[in-house]
Amino acid sequence: MAQNHAVTVLLYTMSTTMNKPKFQGIIPPMITPLLEEDQIDILGLERLLDHMISGGIHGIFILGTTGESTSLSYRLRHELVRLTCKMVNGRLPVLVGITDTAATESIRLANTAKEEGAAAVVAAPPYYFNLGQPELIEYYEYLIRKLPLPLFLYNMPSHTKIIIEPNTVKTLSNYKEIIGLKDSSANNAYFNNLVHKMKDQPDFSLFVGPEEIMAETVLLGADGGVNGGANMFPKLYTKLYEAAKTGDITRVKELHSVVMQISSQLYSLGHYGSSYLKGIKGALSLMGICSDYMASPLHRFRAEDREKLACNLQRIQERVDQLQLR
Amino acid sequence: MAQNHAVTVLLYTMSTTMNKPKFQGIIPPMITPLLEEDQIDILGLERLLDHMISGGIHGIFILGTTGESTSLSYRLRHELVRLTCKMVNGRLPVLVGITDTAATESIRLANTAKEEGAAAVVAAPPYYFNLGQPELIEYYEYLIRKLPLPLFLYNMPSHTKIIIEPNTVKTLSNYKEIIGLKDSSANNAYFNNLVHKMKDQPDFSLFVGPEEIMAETVLLGADGGVNGGANMFPKLYTKLYEAAKTGDITRVKELHSVVMQISSQLYSLGHYGSSYLKGIKGALSLMGICSDYMASPLHRFRAEDREKLACNLQRIQERVDQLQLR
Amino acid sequence: MAQNHAVTVLLYTMSTTMNKPKFQGIIPPMITPLLEEDQIDILGLERLLDHMISGGIHGIFILGTTGESTSLSYRLRHELVRLTCKMVNGRLPVLVGITDTAATESIRLANTAKEEGAAAVVAAPPYYFNLGQPELIEYYEYLIRKLPLPLFLYNMPSHTKIIIEPNTVKTLSNYKEIIGLKDSSANNAYFNNLVHKMKDQPDFSLFVGPEEIMAETVLLGADGGVNGGANMFPKLYTKLYEAAKTGDITRVKELHSVVMQISSQLYSLGHYGSSYLKGIKGALSLMGICSDYMASPLHRFRAEDREKLACNLQRIQERVDQLQLR
Amino acid sequence: MAQNHAVTVLLYTMSTTMNKPKFQGIIPPMITPLLEEDQIDILGLERLLDHMISGGIHGIFILGTTGESTSLSYRLRHELVRLTCKMVNGRLPVLVGITDTAATESIRLANTAKEEGAAAVVAAPPYYFNLGQPELIEYYEYLIRKLPLPLFLYNMPSHTKIIIEPNTVKTLSNYKEIIGLKDSSANNAYFNNLVHKMKDQPDFSLFVGPEEIMAETVLLGADGGVNGGANMFPKLYTKLYEAAKTGDITRVKELHSVVMQISSQLYSLGHYGSSYLKGIKGALSLMGICSDYMASPLHRFRAEDREKLACNLQRIQERVDQLQLR
Repeated sequence: MAQNHAVTVLLYTMSTTMNKPKFQGIIPPMITPLLEEDQIDILGLERLLDHMISGGIHGIFILGTTGESTSLSYRLRHELVRLTCKMVNGRLPVLVGITDTAATESIRLANTAKEEGAAAVVAAPPYYFNLGQPELIEYYEYLIRKLPLPLFLYNMPSHTKIIIEPNTVKTLSNYKEIIGLKDSSANNAYFNNLVHKMKDQPDFSLFVGPEEIMAETVLLGADGGVNGGANMFPKLYTKLYEAAKTGDITRVKELHSVVMQISSQLYSLGHYGSSYLKGIKGALSLMGICSDYMASPLHRFRAEDREKLACNLQRIQERVDQLQLR
Repeated sequence: MAQNHAVTVLLYTMSTTMNKPKFQGIIPPMITPLLEEDQIDILGLERLLDHMISGGIHGIFILGTTGESTSLSYRLRHELVRLTCKMVNGRLPVLVGITDTAATESIRLANTAKEEGAAAVVAAPPYYFNLGQPELIEYYEYLIRKLPLPLFLYNMPSHTKIIIEPNTVKTLSNYKEIIGLKDSSANNAYFNNLVHKMKDQPDFSLFVGPEEIMAETVLLGADGGVNGGANMFPKLYTKLYEAAKTGDITRVKELHSVVMQISSQLYSLGHYGSSYLKGIKGALSLMGICSDYMASPLHRFRAEDREKLACNLQRIQERVDQLQLR
Repeated sequence: MAQNHAVTVLLYTMSTTMNKPKFQGIIPPMITPLLEEDQIDILGLERLLDHMISGGIHGIFILGTTGESTSLSYRLRHELVRLTCKMVNGRLPVLVGITDTAATESIRLANTAKEEGAAAVVAAPPYYFNLGQPELIEYYEYLIRKLPLPLFLYNMPSHTKIIIEPNTVKTLSNYKEIIGLKDSSANNAYFNNLVHKMKDQPDFSLFVGPEEIMAETVLLGADGGVNGGANMFPKLYTKLYEAAKTGDITRVKELHSVVMQISSQLYSLGHYGSSYLKGIKGALSLMGICSDYMASPLHRFRAEDREKLACNLQRIQERVDQLQLR
Repeated sequence: MAQNHAVTVLLYTMSTTMNKPKFQGIIPPMITPLLEEDQIDILGLERLLDHMISGGIHGIFILGTTGESTSLSYRLRHELVRLTCKMVNGRLPVLVGITDTAATESIRLANTAKEEGAAAVVAAPPYYFNLGQPELIEYYEYLIRKLPLPLFLYNMPSHTKIIIEPNTVKTLSNYKEIIGLKDSSANNAYFNNLVHKMKDQPDFSLFVGPEEIMAETVLLGADGGVNGGANMFPKLYTKLYEAAKTGDITRVKELHSVVMQISSQLYSLGHYGSSYLKGIKGALSLMGICSDYMASPLHRFRAEDREKLACNLQRIQERVDQLQLR
């Protein structure tokens, strides 16, 4: 644990040549362990955090899409921030998703995050009204005037109906409060364009969401991955990140192929829009880490899909074990 | 007022041959008068309600898209329900929008609505995750098991990314708790299909949102309109509804053309996705009824558009006055 | 036949107070009878034309979406123009769809249409590249400089990925060569907006495609319908048009409900994107009028759906017979 | 030249352990040099082909999206196939785009391609009707029964409105006539999923379109790029391909950053949907290689954008020269 702490501190320390706190590495978007619609699986949460932290992750992102944040009551969101920060207890930086259609609620949640010691907040565009890019810029400008913590932008067009266009990112990056962006579009032409546009601002952190593209983006300059699979196999993702960061292409290929097996065998069962999420929660339940209850409007796998998941998970677990990651 | 009340009671009385409370007429989607981001314009709210009720509306729908519900804090949403119900004081049925991505919050709001005497609640599909139709059915089934009031479905694909397909409506209409649907798609082939599919269930209420299509849908069998323009000119819309209901096509054409002028001159300034909303709030402010503050991420018109709006509004006001509606 | 001819001539005569040839009534989008992938069902074509003309239609539109134009070889498209014009032999105006991604091919087809005596051509936006509205205006400006016949715009966003926005229509309507628009969006807020915008240009003809919305749009000022169902039951649609044009709301409701039954029972079998087209071609085949072969990439119904279609068609045929239309 | 020829032959030779002709490397999607709407710039075509071949490209793809194929008359498409094949004269394999909404025209074009000695054809889904995946499979099955040359699938959802889903690709890859896929979605999660699914079929060739993502996909197993920028700077792209193929990550980063500069400075002027295409054609014209005429509905840059392009092109040319690629 001491070792992880050192790494974290190193990464999170504000560089003397930089103006913004810099994040790097694997920052898993934590699933939210639930016992019921409005009740956190507290023991599961503790096990999950310890499982991930012992896997060498570099931070933790709660209340993102993978965390089903938009499905959770506000009471529960605030409680989750408090519990997570207490359990993490400074071992890692905690990033808190504050994405909401109501700015007032986003700000309230950010205030709780600040009180509990979180490192930053993350906000996708408001996702009900259809905004233009100028309105999107005004929205983020409004937000940062009220936020007590630095902000990550979060590009998630499949869910929010709007792309944060590269020129919008460039404009917003001029604010010291806006320190980075997580891109979940899976569009690498878009992402590489961002990396190119931001190359004169090395203190602006650029992460990708989809784990299928993490290795290649880090190889070409991204700062890391916010990858759901790291809930299950944290060491696989941190080792893949390290291999990519150091340009060890042989190792990258070896570990990337396991990530692709996870994507193929755990995230596409049942052909739901949310198969990815059902897969991760189901696997964590099968691994004995936490409950797989999903908040409405999503539902955990039914028996048939759960059996397939168990079978595929075992095969993947064996392959991960063979890698002897440490 | 007594007259309005009588009409309302008549319409709202459950028919002896029907199983569901039936709604008909003009039920304006009320804008939410705001003084600031998280503060209701209470005097404006009172004036607005009196203005609309004196125009003969048949119900009031708060916390819809026009009410900017998704932009408001939960505290304010609950406050608005309480204030509106108290001010309406039984003169009209109040419908409360509970659309949310978090079912728990929708249910909490519905409970407040029940306590305050609202007549029904209205819920569009959850709008963050991308659901399939079976998941949508499960969502509404989950909701009605917890709701204390009857439910209107709300089809709003441009904002929620999902159509409530006609077969889904048919399936859900079998639940006694689901009493109607408001369609804001503006797709009349879709809506006419619904009217056709539901013709053996006359107690299922079918309303359209866009006022540009209200007259023709009522002519062909719809139950009424949830039209934003009725915030400004309630009598115009109730008279148009009555003309359509009685098949007075000459009168329909006359009044419909004024509605189209409103749509054309008040709702398309500035070319925003939200020009419609900015237009209504701006006009109500110019009419001295309430503030035009809009909650983030939207903004009221700036000076230039506001001037054009004032000019267009005056022309429309004159034309409405000439109609001598009473 | 003489009677139909007279009506047609009346409608098609250029008014002395108008600058553009005016079209009104039911102009069916003719399906293309095919024996094989690249072979016209010539006898079927003749039967189909006679069937529709004897039903009182006011014009005929070939090579539209319903005509599968984009699936047909150019050789066949030119042949169809020649055959149709010869068979129609001046009894009705023929409109020829020239929609294509290649302007050169559109113009060649228009030249054939002119040679054979067609009355006008119809062009949706080019549907491969994603254009903006200014590029769309330039496209139509380019086209009309080369076209030998007047042009109808064709709004079909579900297939072309672009809406011809109301302001674009207004701009283009200033060209004398552009005489009208057919809207297949089914968005009546859009269409009513067009009717409102064009009310000072009564010589600009406005038609809707989806038959589910024809009656109401004609009631409120549209010029007619380009309705696929008129391939099967031309008299039903011409009578509905007449009832709507004269404001006979009782008759409108009666006939409209049959159209909705057709839509519901013939156009939604098998849940294909092209169920509508499969339904019309299948019904025409069952009625003994022409072959139901569909060009690649579409396919006629397989046995199971065809049986359901036959059963539903019989029920509809009986209902249409009972109406004793004449 | 001899050297290039040898490489090509090597790559194009069917491996003894493979069942399908394998393609690898940079296969530029050639722009179509035009003097006018329906006239090829023949001298420009010759210069362009020689320019690219001398840059070490491994094949040439004509009549793709970059080649404006859908905007060209059929006469011209056939002529371009004949001219290109004659000019290439066996120095490289020629791939011919046959994407069309009319299968009959696709097949005719494929027959010309076969006669002239082309190596394969490329077909995106038909892009007018909205198909489901089963209909898409049937379409390709129909096509290969009639095609005289092996077929590449072409995934281009932004233009065709349909994704060729990974399971559809897997199914179609079982046909010996279907030898590979070009993906222009820029969605690397999708593409990596394909690479993973196809890893037991090494004779199935997988290419990406967008040059911004070519390096990383080749690093992780793709066979090459169909990159528009190789029209201008063929050696840059072939060298980047080689660096990626051999895992030389330092060199990859160096060359990739120039590609990103090209993307950023040449492909985004004027903010058109077709800025990329206008940029390449404009640059080739400025380089003295061929005309920048674009077929309707697209247009070359106007003076202002052309000046910016010239300025940016010069800066890029200098940077490419400094690389001393050979």
